[in-house]
Amino acid sequence: MKTTRVEAFSDGVFAVIITIMVLEMKVPHGAEPAALRPVLPVFLSYVLSFVYLGIYWNNHHHVFHAVRQIHGPSLWANLHLLFWLSLIPFVTGWMGENDFATWPVALYGLVLICAACAYVVLERSLIKHEGKHSTLAVALGKDVKAKLSILLYAIAIPLAFIRPWLSCTLYVVVAITWLIPDPRIERAIAKSERH
Amino acid sequence: MKTTRVEAFSDGVFAVIITIMVLEMKVPHGAEPAALRPVLPVFLSYVLSFVYLGIYWNNHHHVFHAVRQIHGPSLWANLHLLFWLSLIPFVTGWMGENDFATWPVALYGLVLICAACAYVVLERSLIKHEGKHSTLAVALGKDVKAKLSILLYAIAIPLAFIRPWLSCTLYVVVAITWLIPDPRIERAIAKSERH
Amino acid sequence: MKTTRVEAFSDGVFAVIITIMVLEMKVPHGAEPAALRPVLPVFLSYVLSFVYLGIYWNNHHHVFHAVRQIHGPSLWANLHLLFWLSLIPFVTGWMGENDFATWPVALYGLVLICAACAYVVLERSLIKHEGKHSTLAVALGKDVKAKLSILLYAIAIPLAFIRPWLSCTLYVVVAITWLIPDPRIERAIAKSERH
Amino acid sequence: MKTTRVEAFSDGVFAVIITIMVLEMKVPHGAEPAALRPVLPVFLSYVLSFVYLGIYWNNHHHVFHAVRQIHGPSLWANLHLLFWLSLIPFVTGWMGENDFATWPVALYGLVLICAACAYVVLERSLIKHEGKHSTLAVALGKDVKAKLSILLYAIAIPLAFIRPWLSCTLYVVVAITWLIPDPRIERAIAKSERH
Repeated sequence: MKTTRVEAFSDGVFAVIITIMVLEMKVPHGAEPAALRPVLPVFLSYVLSFVYLGIYWNNHHHVFHAVRQIHGPSLWANLHLLFWLSLIPFVTGWMGENDFATWPVALYGLVLICAACAYVVLERSLIKHEGKHSTLAVALGKDVKAKLSILLYAIAIPLAFIRPWLSCTLYVVVAITWLIPDPRIERAIAKSERH
Repeated sequence: MKTTRVEAFSDGVFAVIITIMVLEMKVPHGAEPAALRPVLPVFLSYVLSFVYLGIYWNNHHHVFHAVRQIHGPSLWANLHLLFWLSLIPFVTGWMGENDFATWPVALYGLVLICAACAYVVLERSLIKHEGKHSTLAVALGKDVKAKLSILLYAIAIPLAFIRPWLSCTLYVVVAITWLIPDPRIERAIAKSERH
Repeated sequence: MKTTRVEAFSDGVFAVIITIMVLEMKVPHGAEPAALRPVLPVFLSYVLSFVYLGIYWNNHHHVFHAVRQIHGPSLWANLHLLFWLSLIPFVTGWMGENDFATWPVALYGLVLICAACAYVVLERSLIKHEGKHSTLAVALGKDVKAKLSILLYAIAIPLAFIRPWLSCTLYVVVAITWLIPDPRIERAIAKSERH
Repeated sequence: MKTTRVEAFSDGVFAVIITIMVLEMKVPHGAEPAALRPVLPVFLSYVLSFVYLGIYWNNHHHVFHAVRQIHGPSLWANLHLLFWLSLIPFVTGWMGENDFATWPVALYGLVLICAACAYVVLERSLIKHEGKHSTLAVALGKDVKAKLSILLYAIAIPLAFIRPWLSCTLYVVVAITWLIPDPRIERAIAKSERH
């Protein structure tokens, strides 16, 4: 089966998730700047989650670009990733409404770990079908970056019980390392097209 | 008429339904784990509905993959299916907010029956146009699986008035039997492509 | 310019409108069937609006199928149609929450008139570019059906101040006449493909 | 990489943003026309934002039509634009619920400036890759129109502290100048196709 419809459906889910998060920023009643004060932490957590969803969409885009066919198990691995991403608006709202308190920050990290693991599972599932010597497999290699991110999230969660802002800093650091779309895949595709 | 736009529109509706369900999980006010307690049943019903919508999207994807052209009646059969699926966020929310009480669990089953019947009607409508010897018709056969699911939902509804958790177990069992995308269609397509 | 992206964007807007309407059906607090009583009129108005949006999507699909290229003015005519359709969730909610009272029923009719006029404007704009002897122009002819619908809505609005249910009956009658996708276009396309 | 998936994702985000704005128009409780009074300013700000999002979609459509390939930095420039546009429902709601008061009107202008700058950055990023003599670069030229709009928004913001309605008038004036899709690009494409 071709990947077009999986991509279209995933794009739709990404688009809805990234946009309904903004609904967690409730319109304040007053018209003064002070009325915006309680919205500020929700806004900050919105920015963080927007960047994370942008990263996932970007990487999803790059990975599926290197995939030629998709099969049953990969369809479910993709839905599994979308499930964890769909929880991001909820944890974003909880974290923002409680001024980055301990438990919400820890839960945010847990959802990030689950999404990252689901992403690795999706990659494995796609590589299994494409073959060990496929463009995708060569491009991703051992994917140290994804595994390192999971490790950093795993450190951030207990850290939230000491200093929540330290966990948030870690989330921001991981996001920055991912902001650049995966040059490995672009390079590998360019290479395989040259041959 | 080609199926591309029906698929695009259906993908959009699936994407929105699967994602707005998460809005039923209201962000709690407290920052303690206890604040999440009332969200738990809503979360569980969300997981169940997410899986069901994933199953419907997967099967929809498989069925339309085997269809070459679509006509008026099938367009409406498709919208009819989407109508019942669009009620899932409402019944999911009602079931979750009432800790899987009798009436909400029964209504959930009723919507599942209606969606399953609408799906069978859509299949019949597509097969009618594709012909009895088409890839699709051969692939689906008598679709015992779909009919068995309807039977199990029909058992689950009265069961909700005795033990609601038994009905929920039935819903979970049906979902598990469907988790694997329809190998009949993949096989039939592979076969028809070989000839 | 090709029509693919206009269709994709319109499909997205249709998908979101048709689905967020269901959010107007607020999940009731009780778990008894009586708790569903106040949701009933909202549900009925939801069904009516779902059918109307289905009709518009269906006709939009048919019309754009016969269009080869799209230009600036038609892009805006399309957005103009989507604007009026985007108001349907609001008027549906108002009508449903007030048990089909006079003013909400009249406003519903007004939005239907505006949407129908916007649709006629879109058709004119597309035909102007495709040419008087194009498949589309021949297929639509004078579009008596669309004009008759506008007339019936215009009768339904003042009628709401006498008997709101009579207006609702008219809305249902118009919907039924449109349920069948436009055979004129299918026939004209089939004809032009035969030549 | 081809632009199809970026366009599909952007179309999805545009479709969701333009439609969830309507959720800010809360269904009033009364059934009398007077109950609609408080909704009126929200409706007016909705119309303004709908037109702005329509303009952005239209221009996005035109620009990407002239683009053949997309790379990493442009993907992020596109997400950056979508981020600012995703804030429009929030500022629209704040402006509408406070009857076009000073601070909400000023913040609305700020989001418009940020979106306009993000749009210019996206154009620059795309031109950098397409080349100075590409269809796109020739079509856009120095893009005086976009820069003039930013200037007018910059005037509108301080003006909100004197007369908010003057700022709103400026927003409407800028919108009107943009209502017509960019004929420069259509012309340049037609020209490059003729060669």
